[in-house]
Amino acid sequence: MLKEAIYHRPGNSFAYAYDEETLHIRLRTKKGDVQKVSLLYGDPYNWTKDGWQTSTASMVLSGSDEWFDYYFIEIKPPYRRLRYGFVLESQSETICYTEKGFYDEAPLDDTGYYFCFPFLNAIDVFRAPSWVKDTVWYQIFPERFANGDASIDPAGTLPWGSEEPKPANFFGGDFQGVIDHIDYLVKLGITGIYFTPIFKAKSNHKYDTIDYLEIDPQFGDKETFKKLVKICHENGIKVMLDAVFNHSGFYFEPFQDVLENQETSRYKNWFHLHEYPIVTEPRPNYDTFAFEKSMPKLNTENPEVREYLLKVARYWIEEFDIDGWRLDVANEVDHSFWRDFRKTVKSVKPDAYILGEIWHDSIGWLQGDQFDAVMNYPFTDAVLDFVAKEKIDAKTFTEKITAVINMYPENVNEVAFNLLGSHDTARPLTFCDDNKDKLKLLFLIMLTFKGTPCIYYGDEIGMSGVRDPGCRACMEWDEEKQDLVLFDHVQTLLSLRKEYPVLANEGALNFLFADGQSVAYERTSNEESLLIVLNAGAESAIPFGIPVDYKLIYGMDCSESLPAYGFSIYKK
Amino acid sequence: MLKEAIYHRPGNSFAYAYDEETLHIRLRTKKGDVQKVSLLYGDPYNWTKDGWQTSTASMVLSGSDEWFDYYFIEIKPPYRRLRYGFVLESQSETICYTEKGFYDEAPLDDTGYYFCFPFLNAIDVFRAPSWVKDTVWYQIFPERFANGDASIDPAGTLPWGSEEPKPANFFGGDFQGVIDHIDYLVKLGITGIYFTPIFKAKSNHKYDTIDYLEIDPQFGDKETFKKLVKICHENGIKVMLDAVFNHSGFYFEPFQDVLENQETSRYKNWFHLHEYPIVTEPRPNYDTFAFEKSMPKLNTENPEVREYLLKVARYWIEEFDIDGWRLDVANEVDHSFWRDFRKTVKSVKPDAYILGEIWHDSIGWLQGDQFDAVMNYPFTDAVLDFVAKEKIDAKTFTEKITAVINMYPENVNEVAFNLLGSHDTARPLTFCDDNKDKLKLLFLIMLTFKGTPCIYYGDEIGMSGVRDPGCRACMEWDEEKQDLVLFDHVQTLLSLRKEYPVLANEGALNFLFADGQSVAYERTSNEESLLIVLNAGAESAIPFGIPVDYKLIYGMDCSESLPAYGFSIYKK
Repeated sequence: MLKEAIYHRPGNSFAYAYDEETLHIRLRTKKGDVQKVSLLYGDPYNWTKDGWQTSTASMVLSGSDEWFDYYFIEIKPPYRRLRYGFVLESQSETICYTEKGFYDEAPLDDTGYYFCFPFLNAIDVFRAPSWVKDTVWYQIFPERFANGDASIDPAGTLPWGSEEPKPANFFGGDFQGVIDHIDYLVKLGITGIYFTPIFKAKSNHKYDTIDYLEIDPQFGDKETFKKLVKICHENGIKVMLDAVFNHSGFYFEPFQDVLENQETSRYKNWFHLHEYPIVTEPRPNYDTFAFEKSMPKLNTENPEVREYLLKVARYWIEEFDIDGWRLDVANEVDHSFWRDFRKTVKSVKPDAYILGEIWHDSIGWLQGDQFDAVMNYPFTDAVLDFVAKEKIDAKTFTEKITAVINMYPENVNEVAFNLLGSHDTARPLTFCDDNKDKLKLLFLIMLTFKGTPCIYYGDEIGMSGVRDPGCRACMEWDEEKQDLVLFDHVQTLLSLRKEYPVLANEGALNFLFADGQSVAYERTSNEESLLIVLNAGAESAIPFGIPVDYKLIYGMDCSESLPAYGFSIYKK
Repeated sequence: MLKEAIYHRPGNSFAYAYDEETLHIRLRTKKGDVQKVSLLYGDPYNWTKDGWQTSTASMVLSGSDEWFDYYFIEIKPPYRRLRYGFVLESQSETICYTEKGFYDEAPLDDTGYYFCFPFLNAIDVFRAPSWVKDTVWYQIFPERFANGDASIDPAGTLPWGSEEPKPANFFGGDFQGVIDHIDYLVKLGITGIYFTPIFKAKSNHKYDTIDYLEIDPQFGDKETFKKLVKICHENGIKVMLDAVFNHSGFYFEPFQDVLENQETSRYKNWFHLHEYPIVTEPRPNYDTFAFEKSMPKLNTENPEVREYLLKVARYWIEEFDIDGWRLDVANEVDHSFWRDFRKTVKSVKPDAYILGEIWHDSIGWLQGDQFDAVMNYPFTDAVLDFVAKEKIDAKTFTEKITAVINMYPENVNEVAFNLLGSHDTARPLTFCDDNKDKLKLLFLIMLTFKGTPCIYYGDEIGMSGVRDPGCRACMEWDEEKQDLVLFDHVQTLLSLRKEYPVLANEGALNFLFADGQSVAYERTSNEESLLIVLNAGAESAIPFGIPVDYKLIYGMDCSESLPAYGFSIYKK
């Protein structure tokens, strides 16, 4: 066995509390190297005259990525305490792997050799709101969804869709526009809206907040927003707002005060100012988001700033009953702030959802004390590389997904915020070179996957667009120009996701087959089992043998042949 | 190169903030597999027309354990943000390792491939009190150090040292005894006392607290304790108390109330009670420490319990000016409680020290939000296995130490609580089979090592004893029976540690030589360099070539020969 490949370290994604009584334990080994892995475990204090009382249980091979196999087991220790090691068997040898290293025989004279999960304390369990895993999000960029009230259009507003989206043009999208189209959203079947920022700001994207306690007048007033939330709730739709707490906008009053009063400003400790006078050129002499002078970084270590931002966090929940916060540039704000943020938010609404914008490995924010989820861009990359860009084959796709899944605990994966794109990326159809068959497969995968999916407005009717600002075009409301076949496809997948809870998060996800550009995976629970088969290639492919007791519930029958871009969902 | 052995994951011990401007980055590779490792890095937002602006810097091979080499680099990113990858070179190939996998050439079209340290926020930096790394602790088990006031002896107190320590005998050790012998401690040269519990309890060890706000009358009153702390401080000695917050004693009033009133007790949520009536046999039907019915586990998730224990944490600092808390069974209490505990303690005394009792891998408690240190039993194991038990050779010793060092960040290692034994283990002399030459080497290593060492009372004069209760004998005050040569040795090492800050924590620790039972290591800083050479074997050994510019400052000259149990400290 290749000992250098064997890895386990308690915490993170390798040993964690799944719920108040269940531990999950994973082990990583070199791909194809080990034949059987067992967990050797016991209560740390359970000694009798015969010595330490232990048990063993087989672990299952839960998946493989490019380099490694992952073994998994679920354990419910009666006293919520566990010491454990691993017994690994290959054709030629059996070894015991412990915190102190490798042994030919499991050492049983002392529990000190073993890995330790000292006590499963309920309060430390990672716990996202229970509604999240059944939610399908719809992301709205408010300036571009619908203009429902021309009377509040900002100066220079252009006729809806009259030109390409540009960094600084305005089309007058607003809350009334969303209210006017609530039926559309209900018809589509989404159950949550994530709004990019709505607070008073200068730009069309509103990521440059001027006032965190006011709505931007181009979107409407507080009454209208309250009405919008109420209508959403009446229609079974949760509402999540976008909080830009890493930095403020240039015109945020405290920053303007700093510019005006420099060293004597009472707000000088609200930012990270390095010298006086404050200058913006050639590079700002204060910390900013990136090198963007108009986005001064907030000093979230300052108790005054903290108090202000936590007031904001509470205010929109208490006054408007919003259901979640999406946190912009969440990775650059201190962990200490996010811990206080979580406590504050959960104290006013225990089942509020906290979603961080982090594009890279996010394990440090997903330990139960900070976020409920992050935007799952590693999923986006894998699915786009496979289907849209054809950069990887099906096997590599399953490996990449397996790697992502094993980066995080299962309770984190269940609420991963899966997306095909956002206001920060090109639209998926554009990545597909406008091939709508591919786009249908992207939706198929995302909407039959573990996690909580998010549809970026307009993707469901075939809108295309390159990266910002191209992806921020006005929503197409002319049904003649909407791709209604695509809409039907998304709508059908959403209704299947409701009809079969196993497609949302009740079910495990197992890859059964990966060959060329074809893949098959099942979603299973004790109650039901669904099988998803697809061919992301431009050529027909060898079919995956569908077991006889499965019947087709969506797509084409692929049991005899698997046509180019063909797909199907079977039910056992 | 063996790709399966290559490991890096931001956070934990692999990428962390060392101070407010410095990042430490480590990489693990298969032992002996790689010839050169460079860090490829840049600010995530530093793009010009030529693309992403990156730099490279060589990493140093900082050590090796049984299976792996560890590479290290220190980086001060000007904007406190970093994206980075690793370029690894062997004789036959060069590869680039990133968060997204391995590449033949470093991909530079997108920073998204790279590992990310998004922002170095000062508040998240792990920071132990600055005094700790220069402190040498002395652990006192109060019942057994000295009886200074016979008037408060508990009933049945035996004459000092008149019999072996037993689970339930008493010898009347008290605070006055410590005060009486403060000169002894000053002469020895220690600068901190860690007292095992002093609060009202039934047993001689006092780990079964009855009242967390009262001193056990056998030790004295609050006035005497206040006097003791004052005298310690006047003599440059810090005082650390032992908090048993995982469980209370059986006679803790709230638990007695539960026993009396069962389901109607107002304290029923202070514990983890599983059914009524509460029973203690055959096994308690409430959670306990281990299966010890007399130690009911406290429900630290209950806000009332939390408030009570945090009051305790504050009280002894505010009223008695203690300098630190050692936390018993710290690993079984919830992380959430320890976060609140840290905030509370640091709010009343910012430079108080928080030490957790954890015997296993403790990375989850050493992220800056919970403890300053844990009891470094992995160090104890390595040094005892090498010197006392002769279970491992010098090379294995260096590998085990290297593994421990690489488990934790450097700022954690600098304040690691290194010990040769405690009230919970056999005494080191007993592990040495009473070979005092070996014990001298154990002290030599511990007192010239990175970390904050702790001497268990009496070890310095050659007391022996098997595990609890054997290791808890009365302190030997008869100078005729004290090993004064050993005392001198320890005293000399302590004075050297004061004279040469590099021996405490200013200096890096590098192993230079390991052969058979002989080892040589240096402690170096920009200012000074000390070389420690020792032979833990019973046979003389091949000497390590001492460079000519080093002069002997302690021990015997080992440049010509390295006798059995020989040792020396050289200075450059």
